[in-house]
Amino acid sequence: MNVLIVLAHPEPHSFNAHLVEQARQAWLAQGHQVKTVDLYQEGFDPREGAGHYPSRKQAGRFDAMQEQRHHWTIQALPAEIRRHIELLRWADTLVLQFPFWWFGAPAILKGWMDRVFVYGGVYDSRHRHENGVMRGKRALLTVTAGASAQACAPDGRDGDMRLMLWPIMHALHYIGFSVLEPFLVYGVRGGLAGEERQAQNAALAQVTQAYREGLSDLAAWPAVPFNRNDDFDADLALKPGAPVYSPFVRHRDPV
Amino acid sequence: MNVLIVLAHPEPHSFNAHLVEQARQAWLAQGHQVKTVDLYQEGFDPREGAGHYPSRKQAGRFDAMQEQRHHWTIQALPAEIRRHIELLRWADTLVLQFPFWWFGAPAILKGWMDRVFVYGGVYDSRHRHENGVMRGKRALLTVTAGASAQACAPDGRDGDMRLMLWPIMHALHYIGFSVLEPFLVYGVRGGLAGEERQAQNAALAQVTQAYREGLSDLAAWPAVPFNRNDDFDADLALKPGAPVYSPFVRHRDPV
Repeated sequence: MNVLIVLAHPEPHSFNAHLVEQARQAWLAQGHQVKTVDLYQEGFDPREGAGHYPSRKQAGRFDAMQEQRHHWTIQALPAEIRRHIELLRWADTLVLQFPFWWFGAPAILKGWMDRVFVYGGVYDSRHRHENGVMRGKRALLTVTAGASAQACAPDGRDGDMRLMLWPIMHALHYIGFSVLEPFLVYGVRGGLAGEERQAQNAALAQVTQAYREGLSDLAAWPAVPFNRNDDFDADLALKPGAPVYSPFVRHRDPV
Repeated sequence: MNVLIVLAHPEPHSFNAHLVEQARQAWLAQGHQVKTVDLYQEGFDPREGAGHYPSRKQAGRFDAMQEQRHHWTIQALPAEIRRHIELLRWADTLVLQFPFWWFGAPAILKGWMDRVFVYGGVYDSRHRHENGVMRGKRALLTVTAGASAQACAPDGRDGDMRLMLWPIMHALHYIGFSVLEPFLVYGVRGGLAGEERQAQNAALAQVTQAYREGLSDLAAWPAVPFNRNDDFDADLALKPGAPVYSPFVRHRDPV
């Protein structure tokens, strides 16, 4: 199995980086291939815009989708984007590792999606969902929050964390990935000292162990259910009788 | 009334920029003050990270929340961040204007939230929701999608667009804003020609007119309901009997 881990955290010694390294070691020990991308370390520019497109199809007006498709077709996408797409094609499993900032991913990871999931190359009108370019591959979000599990629960003060991650899971599904239930870690806070720090370290050591165990058998890891292309009619509305999947449906069996 | 419009679109002649200009003119004609921020034009860096913090509290390990609070306290935040916070404090109404990219905001806008909504200055444990620093102010998302209204409907193939915007609305509420129902524009696509282009222009002219009319009476614009701080118990769980607000509750009366 080929695994790609994309890390989006500004601190090289963060707990996020630690989870990446733990996952990498666990998979290497099983004989898998693992590659990691550290978006901060490589200085990835998350701003989709005209400056990345040297051979504009439309010089007077920048349209991201048009230029993505054009530059994909003439093989003129920036080197870092071509490399990231190659890595996605190489991988059987993708892990996105990031801290939960303002109820979503850090901007650098959102921009990785904006720039790397190129129209024409990674999706188009004939390639999405179960017909997507990434079909047959798994994607997992591994996300750390500073708040408690209760604060991030569906009835918690900070809002349902899994719901907040739905747009990212939906995007991964859109380009064809089978999306696994996210691995959520709570109570990851800086600035602790003394007993609080010790208690946190002990809790996170347990989480890390559970994570490694879960990764050892991804086939048993539950996946998130999504509708298929043919669940929708020609107007793109859900057909009567099709299953209704939403962020509130949790499918606990492996898919 | 003081209005701040934040635009996140890479093309200066985009329909998004057009909506900003139309809103600006409509409000100026009513005698309001309007300021606009064009994140692409000012080259805003959306990557929260150590490089923005010259006077680190913790030199060995970068923790965004700790450094945000510290640099807020010693007034050492970068000039662009201080300016954006001042603009937020000046405004009575905030408009975030952006295209819908991968089921959310462009990275440059997400990073504006990551960097500008600083811990210690824009929120802390005593200042959030109805006690938030931005209490008494309104926030509106004005968002364009390439897909059709049906594709973006709750039963649409691309997923419920309003649901996908929930994390951003939740963040705005978190720092104290009253969040208005988002203004969603569908079918905004580049690369059209001939009759398709004409039909799009006609449709978008109607949308623009409706937008200007809506903006002329914001007091009548419906707001999104959220729970209050005291709806939650000490463990941050919703108290029995508290109203259950979620992205699926649409409160159509002005709040």
